[in-house]
Amino acid sequence: MNRSNSEVMSKPCLCLDIGGSKIRSAVVTHDGRVVAWEQEPTCARNGVTGVFESICRVLDRLLARNNLNTSQFEALAAAVAGGIDMPNGLVTQSPHLPDWRDVPLRDMLTERYLKTFIINDASAAALGEHRLGVGLGVKNLVYLTVSTGIGGGIIINNELYLGQSGCAGEIGHMCLDINGKEDVCGNKGCLETLASGTAIVSRVQTELAGGEFSILVERFKADYSALTAEDIGRAASEGDRLCLGIIRQAGEYLGIGLVNIANIFNPELIILGGGVSKLGEIFIEPARQVLYKRAFRLAGDDVRLIVSVLGDNAGVIGAALYAYACLDSANNQPQ
Amino acid sequence: MNRSNSEVMSKPCLCLDIGGSKIRSAVVTHDGRVVAWEQEPTCARNGVTGVFESICRVLDRLLARNNLNTSQFEALAAAVAGGIDMPNGLVTQSPHLPDWRDVPLRDMLTERYLKTFIINDASAAALGEHRLGVGLGVKNLVYLTVSTGIGGGIIINNELYLGQSGCAGEIGHMCLDINGKEDVCGNKGCLETLASGTAIVSRVQTELAGGEFSILVERFKADYSALTAEDIGRAASEGDRLCLGIIRQAGEYLGIGLVNIANIFNPELIILGGGVSKLGEIFIEPARQVLYKRAFRLAGDDVRLIVSVLGDNAGVIGAALYAYACLDSANNQPQ
Repeated sequence: MNRSNSEVMSKPCLCLDIGGSKIRSAVVTHDGRVVAWEQEPTCARNGVTGVFESICRVLDRLLARNNLNTSQFEALAAAVAGGIDMPNGLVTQSPHLPDWRDVPLRDMLTERYLKTFIINDASAAALGEHRLGVGLGVKNLVYLTVSTGIGGGIIINNELYLGQSGCAGEIGHMCLDINGKEDVCGNKGCLETLASGTAIVSRVQTELAGGEFSILVERFKADYSALTAEDIGRAASEGDRLCLGIIRQAGEYLGIGLVNIANIFNPELIILGGGVSKLGEIFIEPARQVLYKRAFRLAGDDVRLIVSVLGDNAGVIGAALYAYACLDSANNQPQ
Repeated sequence: MNRSNSEVMSKPCLCLDIGGSKIRSAVVTHDGRVVAWEQEPTCARNGVTGVFESICRVLDRLLARNNLNTSQFEALAAAVAGGIDMPNGLVTQSPHLPDWRDVPLRDMLTERYLKTFIINDASAAALGEHRLGVGLGVKNLVYLTVSTGIGGGIIINNELYLGQSGCAGEIGHMCLDINGKEDVCGNKGCLETLASGTAIVSRVQTELAGGEFSILVERFKADYSALTAEDIGRAASEGDRLCLGIIRQAGEYLGIGLVNIANIFNPELIILGGGVSKLGEIFIEPARQVLYKRAFRLAGDDVRLIVSVLGDNAGVIGAALYAYACLDSANNQPQ
C-alpha cells in the first residue's frame, strides 16, 4: 500500500492540550478545524493521578456533550507541557506537572480511550501555526509559547524538528542569567524564571508584599495568592505603574531570549503564543525593541515577530496534525 | 546534464580559514585531505585592507611554495569568523575583525584569484566534522569552536543548517548573563564574553593586575599584554592555582552554554573545537559536569560531548566540502 491517506482519513482526532494551568480537549478534523472543545483546570498539584483524572474528565465531558464515542475518531492526540520521550511515549519531566517523571501517558490514554500519540505542546503549536497559521509557507521558524511556563517549537526546512529523542525546543529552559535563581527544571536563571506568567505574578506579589502601591491592593484586599497574569495585564492597561513596569521588564527579558533565538537560528519568523502573549504590546513591544537592537544585524534584519493566530487552539490543532502525519507515515510503510 | 560531479571534480580547492587571530590557507582535495597549508597572524587591528593583505599573503605563499596557480583549483573556499550574508557574499559583521561591515569578500577574492564561496568558519567546521570527522553518521549535532571568540555550526537531519540568510549558529552570541558586560556584537553577557580565549586571558590579566599570585608573574615580568590562553593553559597544567581556577570557571560557563544547546537542540552530539578546547580536561571536565547536571534529563542523557578530530583543519576542510557541494548543485541544475 502506498497511497496518500488524506482522502481515506476522514475521521476527526480526539485531542488534548495539557498545560500547567488548563487542560483543553477538542475534536479536530483532518483539515485542522476545531469543531468542539472543553476546558478545565489542570490541578497540577494533585499529582499524576489527580491530573490524569482531570484529563479523563475533560475528555469524557467532550464525548458526552457531543454524543460521541471513541470509535468515531482516528486517534487520540495529546500535546503536553513537558519533556516527551517520543519513542517510548513517556512524559519524562515537566516543570509544571510536579511528580510527573517518566509517566507512560501514551499507553495510559491508549488503554482507556484509543490509539494515542503524544507530543510536546509547543512543538505541536509550532506545527499547527506552520501548516495552518501565520507560519504557512515559512521554511524556518521558531514558536514560543509564553504561559504558565515558556515552551518552544522549531520548524527547520518546513519540518518539525524534534531532536534526538523528541525533546528539542526547551527554549524556556535556556539560561539567561548565570546568577539567577534555581528553576524547577534543575537549571538556573532560565528564560522561564524571568518572562513567564509565573515570573510576572511572582514579581508583582513580591512587590505588593513589600508595600508597593498598585490598584491591585484595593482590588485584592491584601490576599494576592489568586493573582493571575491576566489580572496584572488588566491593571497595567488601566495605567497601573507597578504592573506596567513589571510587564515591560518581563518583555525585555523575553526580548533577550528572542535575541538568542535569532542569533542561533537566523529564522524568518518567531511566533509568540500562549496566554501571556495576549497581554499585547505592553509586553511584546519591549521584547521587539530588545530583539532588533541586540541581535546580530543580519539575523535581526531578517526576522519577523508575529503573534499566533491559532491562539488557544494551536496545541490541539498541532497535535492532530502530528497524529495524522504519524498515521499516514505508518500506512505508507511497505507492507 | 544531470550527473554526479564527484568523478569529474578532481581538482582540489584552494581554501582559507580566516579567524580572529590566525589565517590558514590550504590545498584541500575533493575527498577532504589537506595536502599543503600555510598560516599567519590575522592582524585584525589593521582593518579591512590590512586583513585582506594578510589573506593574500598567506594564499600567495601557499601557491608559490607549492608551484601552483589558480587554474589548478576548482574554486576558492573561505571560512570566515563572522556573520555571512551568503546570498550576497558579504561578511556583514565580525566581532573579531573590527571595521568589517558588509565587506564583499566573495567578490574581492573572486576578482583576485578565482570563483569563491564563503561560509562562516564554525558552520564550515561543523560540516567537516559531520562528513569526515567525529560527526560521521550523526543526524543532529552542534559544533562549537572555542577560540578567540566562540562560534557555532549546526547539522540538522544530516544537513548543514544555515538559517534564513546564512548566519545561523551564532551560539557564542547567546546571552547567558543579563547583567553581563556589553559584547562587541551589540548584545550583553554573551557566552563568548565568559568562556572564550579572550575572556580567559582578560580575566587572568585583571587578577594579575590586582596583585594575585601566579607563576605567570615571574614568567611575564609584569607585562601581561602578550599573554595567551595557551600560556595560561601551560601554567595551569603546572599547577598554577590562579590559572586553574579561571580555566575551570570558564569551563563552567561553557557548560551553561552547552546546557542551553542540549535543551534547545536535543542533539546526539556536541563537538568542541578551536584552540581553547585544546586546554583539555581542565577546561572540558567542568563544562561536562554542568551539562549533565543541569540539562533536561532526556536531553542530557542523550548527548555526547566530544572534541573535534579535524582540529585546526576543520575550517578549511569544511569550506572545501561546502564549495564542492555548491558547484555540484549548480552543475546539477537543469540547463
